[in-house]
Amino acid sequence: MNTFGYLFRVTTWGESHGKAVGCVIDGCPAGLKIDHEFIAKEMQRRKPGGIFSSKRREEDVVEILSGVLDDVTLGTPISILIRNVDVDSSSYEKIRTVFRPGHADFTYWAKFGIYDWRGGGRASGRETAARVAAGAIAKLILKRFGIKIFGYAKEIAGIKFRVEDPEKAFEISEKSPIRCPDSEMEKLAEEKIVEAIESGDSVGGIVECVAKNVPPGLGEPVFGKLNAYLAYAVMSIPAVKGVEIGRGFEVSRLRGSENNDPIILKDGKIRFAKNDAGGILGGISNGEDVVIRAAVKPTPSISKEQRSIDWEKMEEVSVSVKGRHDPCIVPRAVPVVEAMVSLVLVDCMILQQIVPRKL
Amino acid sequence: MNTFGYLFRVTTWGESHGKAVGCVIDGCPAGLKIDHEFIAKEMQRRKPGGIFSSKRREEDVVEILSGVLDDVTLGTPISILIRNVDVDSSSYEKIRTVFRPGHADFTYWAKFGIYDWRGGGRASGRETAARVAAGAIAKLILKRFGIKIFGYAKEIAGIKFRVEDPEKAFEISEKSPIRCPDSEMEKLAEEKIVEAIESGDSVGGIVECVAKNVPPGLGEPVFGKLNAYLAYAVMSIPAVKGVEIGRGFEVSRLRGSENNDPIILKDGKIRFAKNDAGGILGGISNGEDVVIRAAVKPTPSISKEQRSIDWEKMEEVSVSVKGRHDPCIVPRAVPVVEAMVSLVLVDCMILQQIVPRKL
Amino acid sequence: MNTFGYLFRVTTWGESHGKAVGCVIDGCPAGLKIDHEFIAKEMQRRKPGGIFSSKRREEDVVEILSGVLDDVTLGTPISILIRNVDVDSSSYEKIRTVFRPGHADFTYWAKFGIYDWRGGGRASGRETAARVAAGAIAKLILKRFGIKIFGYAKEIAGIKFRVEDPEKAFEISEKSPIRCPDSEMEKLAEEKIVEAIESGDSVGGIVECVAKNVPPGLGEPVFGKLNAYLAYAVMSIPAVKGVEIGRGFEVSRLRGSENNDPIILKDGKIRFAKNDAGGILGGISNGEDVVIRAAVKPTPSISKEQRSIDWEKMEEVSVSVKGRHDPCIVPRAVPVVEAMVSLVLVDCMILQQIVPRKL
Amino acid sequence: MNTFGYLFRVTTWGESHGKAVGCVIDGCPAGLKIDHEFIAKEMQRRKPGGIFSSKRREEDVVEILSGVLDDVTLGTPISILIRNVDVDSSSYEKIRTVFRPGHADFTYWAKFGIYDWRGGGRASGRETAARVAAGAIAKLILKRFGIKIFGYAKEIAGIKFRVEDPEKAFEISEKSPIRCPDSEMEKLAEEKIVEAIESGDSVGGIVECVAKNVPPGLGEPVFGKLNAYLAYAVMSIPAVKGVEIGRGFEVSRLRGSENNDPIILKDGKIRFAKNDAGGILGGISNGEDVVIRAAVKPTPSISKEQRSIDWEKMEEVSVSVKGRHDPCIVPRAVPVVEAMVSLVLVDCMILQQIVPRKL
Repeated sequence: MNTFGYLFRVTTWGESHGKAVGCVIDGCPAGLKIDHEFIAKEMQRRKPGGIFSSKRREEDVVEILSGVLDDVTLGTPISILIRNVDVDSSSYEKIRTVFRPGHADFTYWAKFGIYDWRGGGRASGRETAARVAAGAIAKLILKRFGIKIFGYAKEIAGIKFRVEDPEKAFEISEKSPIRCPDSEMEKLAEEKIVEAIESGDSVGGIVECVAKNVPPGLGEPVFGKLNAYLAYAVMSIPAVKGVEIGRGFEVSRLRGSENNDPIILKDGKIRFAKNDAGGILGGISNGEDVVIRAAVKPTPSISKEQRSIDWEKMEEVSVSVKGRHDPCIVPRAVPVVEAMVSLVLVDCMILQQIVPRKL
Repeated sequence: MNTFGYLFRVTTWGESHGKAVGCVIDGCPAGLKIDHEFIAKEMQRRKPGGIFSSKRREEDVVEILSGVLDDVTLGTPISILIRNVDVDSSSYEKIRTVFRPGHADFTYWAKFGIYDWRGGGRASGRETAARVAAGAIAKLILKRFGIKIFGYAKEIAGIKFRVEDPEKAFEISEKSPIRCPDSEMEKLAEEKIVEAIESGDSVGGIVECVAKNVPPGLGEPVFGKLNAYLAYAVMSIPAVKGVEIGRGFEVSRLRGSENNDPIILKDGKIRFAKNDAGGILGGISNGEDVVIRAAVKPTPSISKEQRSIDWEKMEEVSVSVKGRHDPCIVPRAVPVVEAMVSLVLVDCMILQQIVPRKL
Repeated sequence: MNTFGYLFRVTTWGESHGKAVGCVIDGCPAGLKIDHEFIAKEMQRRKPGGIFSSKRREEDVVEILSGVLDDVTLGTPISILIRNVDVDSSSYEKIRTVFRPGHADFTYWAKFGIYDWRGGGRASGRETAARVAAGAIAKLILKRFGIKIFGYAKEIAGIKFRVEDPEKAFEISEKSPIRCPDSEMEKLAEEKIVEAIESGDSVGGIVECVAKNVPPGLGEPVFGKLNAYLAYAVMSIPAVKGVEIGRGFEVSRLRGSENNDPIILKDGKIRFAKNDAGGILGGISNGEDVVIRAAVKPTPSISKEQRSIDWEKMEEVSVSVKGRHDPCIVPRAVPVVEAMVSLVLVDCMILQQIVPRKL
Repeated sequence: MNTFGYLFRVTTWGESHGKAVGCVIDGCPAGLKIDHEFIAKEMQRRKPGGIFSSKRREEDVVEILSGVLDDVTLGTPISILIRNVDVDSSSYEKIRTVFRPGHADFTYWAKFGIYDWRGGGRASGRETAARVAAGAIAKLILKRFGIKIFGYAKEIAGIKFRVEDPEKAFEISEKSPIRCPDSEMEKLAEEKIVEAIESGDSVGGIVECVAKNVPPGLGEPVFGKLNAYLAYAVMSIPAVKGVEIGRGFEVSRLRGSENNDPIILKDGKIRFAKNDAGGILGGISNGEDVVIRAAVKPTPSISKEQRSIDWEKMEEVSVSVKGRHDPCIVPRAVPVVEAMVSLVLVDCMILQQIVPRKL
């Protein structure tokens, strides 16, 4: 189940401390011009850097091995290779028989009878580099259809950020080291992160992603609903524990008359007055902005002492996870959420035959 | 995309006011004894009834047409037929050219150029009858493995319900007309619903579902994560706008040291001290209770006047949806959430080879 | 695995002596006018009748339960129900613990630990009624695009039939009780069948199916090749033991210079001079007639005594299969092969976006 | 559609003259010891070499980038990379606007509006290197269950080879430069190939593959039949135009009483007396040898002059394909057929839960 998508299918592979991570994109339309610079920029956005993220140096050079001739896609599988550099497994060596709390060590062991103890292996956030690379290609397709994807932090460590216009929020957040779209609250959130770092701890937050200019008609009844597909996509990102569309959990406290979007005519077009539904009705896009939010848990790797199990000795131990970790994964999760949303939209657009087989 | 599941595959079909709804279950293990009484009881739980739900009379008799010989499954597809009785499309006739706000009329029209104007057609909650029938068969399998599924309302119209033990909550809620597990708050919630009815309006709420005795190892890296699969399953239910696992959105406000579950030894078994993770780590079950919550929007069908569009005349109109509607869909959504969770778990257990091909 | 197709997906269900057989068609484009008469006629073509086929009376009335409103498809699943009438399991009762040679009794038992002993259960040719119903709907779509499907017997009991023009062959064969397109050889083949009947035996043959006006570009590299997909489709029909495309096995004896189709310009179009390739190159249609042949084994049900096993007593026995069987299944296999070829072509045309989501 | 398999899924990628070809294997059981030497040996079997094959030098070094730790599989995707070395596109440059007869140039162009003119691109036999690598890992699994796969040429250029015992045939053929299992006829076949070479032409043939010790119960009703799956798998190999199981096309000329396999008891086991069915009944393995044959067309690349089209000028031209080609592809197709059969069997064994998730 390392493949995502119906017609635009992305298969990712690779372990955190293995030779490389990568993906194969199958079903990409032919005739797409590959903008290598854009892909590199997207990879850059996910890379660690700055005081608020991991110290691991990831070059994340995207090597395209197939499916592209003279920078144009052939309609055949695009194989993407991203070498793992600066891998350092030494800090894991000491705890290789200890399940790290909040991590997948135990569950992979329970499932497969074996797990890669080096840096989280397949369950590491490192895997998302391949998603961002695939998402970058999806975004190149979306661009051709005028669709824009804006992701940013909506909340960090309990500090909520105000957003009026998603596009502006995106622009501001891209200049913020923590992808905060609210200049007023940014300092407060950064202080919370610094506090966490100082106490060997970590914090979580919420990512919001808005897709503009999405055509109506995307999503498939009844199990391929656009909201179901998006929830699946975003919930598959490591550390995500909740997903909501439009006003999400809030709607459970509204009346029908408050929540229903009045349908109106605007410039001769059928539109929805408030878009509380987040651009989706009955599982199908209605032409308004698609809005999704993801709850991101605090990074489980903390240097604070925690209780756990040494599975070799089968006894309780105390463990402190050293390595190089992000005190708050939210900023780096933003481009990953964008990538997953982009993959879903492109796939739905091919299914709906809006994106043709040959561009 | 009317098929759900990898190996335990359920294909549902049918429109609200058509001849019937139903499903085909493909991949059900052979040798399962079919308990018709149990299936009938599950259908009963979803049926409308009482003052708090639609007045439509749905007999929901489950007719099994294939895949079963002498009440034992053959391993071949199980075809289930549920006739639609008491269908009355008259109230829809008057508004057949008007998109009902909050409904899928417009989006189906945008997607297919045509839609069934009678009672929501394929997008109606009626479709979930087939899910509950399939879920009942899934539950029969889960029972064989000691797994229990407990669903109930967690919140209605903003009134939060206290739950200590999911099993007890389930028992109490099953006696409540609104599936409320909190005897103290029940009246308050009912009053809110009555208020909504009286003003021609509706309310929403939150459903919680807990699966006990789930074995560790379920869920597939990286896109078949158990939480992603559950989110997809539950978000595909009509009216659901948000999904969360374990403590869900709350974790975004916690520190890593608060959120991480300490791993402990209990009776010689590896266990998780608090289960804030809701039974899932790295997308794979860890042996603790699997906990999921769904935000359910207020029923979009309300008799209050709303603004909308008549697509024939292409002009704005005022519309009041008469028909027979649930003022609050939460109580009836509970068995549907349970059904979807059951389908996911059985499918994952077959994938993990815990459930054999022949029982 | 009772579902066939990527985007035009047909799930069949039902046992030979159960209440009914049927299918769900998911992914049928919206806006298709359903021609009930045509569907009935296609069902008629598969029905037993005449001296050369089974005496079982199958009414094969197709009941459409969903997905169609006022005879037009909605884009939602089309559920088809075909009641089993005139079911007589008495002749099977006597041999219910004996595996019938050439049948699937043993293999279903080995797979599922249980099998439906009544008339072959799920493995019976009865299941193909659902395929023909689905195929009829596929043909309605193909018609809209000018594609015609012509099936007929190419050989029966070793008697080869000459075919010059597939369309004429089809017309002649439709008037023949054994679907023979060669008036000269028809009598000879019929004599062979009568001989087999008289000695309590059966004969086999070869079905040929030609699709005309297939657009170039159908089929997906590399595992969704059109020839691979067709082989899969046709080999899934009971009794088929071999499949070939174009000149098929003959090409293994040709030189490259003989086998390669010269590419020419004809009326300004790129065409292939001889079409020995059967309309497919590199797994993708080239615009010429798609030609496929299927080897059909002699009906395994024969009244002649055969050696077998009684699994209850675990001892060797002699068995004579009475029931009502076709002495030669080839004529009735013709519409089934046509149905499977039609399903493949429609699916590939949707994948290639030649058939739109809304017709 | 570059992915093959339900649970043991292989996604191949790469063009003939691109940087590399490769595949991702998803769903490989954890705990499998990777025998690198065996994989290298299998790659060697497919490599060109000797006077009867292409002069292209393919090192075919298999680099495993993920999914394996200390030579043991982790249950996560195995990414395989095979660099293309000795690529020479010069001979193609001259004919880059000419569709080569018998090749996929035209059909890829019709499908995608673009094609890789260098050596057949994605449609080249080069792609099968990735299949053989994946097949080698499948064979490592089959070995653990005592299943053996024997492939060899059954016929070349019309010269039929006698085979009594598949295992012996395999051993003899592995020493033959043309994979001929019949020492008597080998010279004759070689002469035919030499004749073809001398006249700038090519020849075809038939590959046979036998799987021994296949357990009963593999294959899924009704569209996942083992024979259908095998036909699909083998027909997806470039140059294959026909597939048959057991006695295949011959059965169409037999009587039921001749073709049916008597079921007998042998050493207390249920067995089939003659295995004309090729190990499959009703689409499910019966425990006897699985036997499949593939018709391989003569290599389309020939230096003889042929008629074709220059698509740039849209005019008829004469073309002679130079490059480095196999005069007969049959010997090199043998390990590819074996690989595809192995992939099918492993996948079916995982589906049937005979191969566990953790070995």
